[in-house]
Amino acid sequence: MDITLRPATATDVPDIVAMLADDILGSGRENPAELAPYEAAFARIDADPSQHLLVAERDGRTVGTLQLAILYGLSRQGSPRALIEAVRVRADARGAGIGSELIRLAVEEARRQGCALVQLTSDRTRTGAHRFYERLGFRPTHVGYKLTL
Amino acid sequence: MDITLRPATATDVPDIVAMLADDILGSGRENPAELAPYEAAFARIDADPSQHLLVAERDGRTVGTLQLAILYGLSRQGSPRALIEAVRVRADARGAGIGSELIRLAVEEARRQGCALVQLTSDRTRTGAHRFYERLGFRPTHVGYKLTL
Repeated sequence: MDITLRPATATDVPDIVAMLADDILGSGRENPAELAPYEAAFARIDADPSQHLLVAERDGRTVGTLQLAILYGLSRQGSPRALIEAVRVRADARGAGIGSELIRLAVEEARRQGCALVQLTSDRTRTGAHRFYERLGFRPTHVGYKLTL
Repeated sequence: MDITLRPATATDVPDIVAMLADDILGSGRENPAELAPYEAAFARIDADPSQHLLVAERDGRTVGTLQLAILYGLSRQGSPRALIEAVRVRADARGAGIGSELIRLAVEEARRQGCALVQLTSDRTRTGAHRFYERLGFRPTHVGYKLTL
């Protein structure tokens, strides 16, 4: 599939926010009408060499996004691990394998950065996403806890 | 409880590794006899302003550790989130509420850094840990996936 994954730039922020908001859980959490907080967050991500906010393009159009964080830790003999967050595929581009390609490219990047594992969490209600990650070889070995502040 | 949480220094690495290794899952993954990879990882954590490797002290003795990462992202209107990893309490200091105090202090730090939520994953087999996190207000809303590279 002819998808390219590239680092997001400030001009991608509106497209990314639109994808975050066009989602059953995201729709109640995001506010695409007010971009300033997203732009401020983008500046912090962009300044952090361990954070990679990526967009997928197909035929010159943004069709997906995810964030890949490289985390250094002492566990597992000091191996870095990768964390994938905020995976979205544009609604009108779903079902074409873009999500799989997005994850495949992110895993490849994690491997290039020397990570020993890639981790992510998925809301318990997203059963379609669970089948998707299991097909890609991820194992549901953990319980994911959140505490809202 | 008279526990203080402070940033780890390079001299804490052997103590932290000993705690990581003294664990039912960690014992098969860690190698305290070979500290060099841990020291290299510590240098990277220490150089990253978003990563906080912490140790808990009681009566001048190291009794616990955890790693707190502050992650910037676009989701949730650009709110930072905190990720807790590698929580350990020294075996001979367990059962005294040190773990709860460690998490409480980490959550307080996450709040101070403006995080909207704190997240962590716990291996499905650690049922005692699950009860512990639920008592502290964490909700098991997610499935945690890992892909070993």
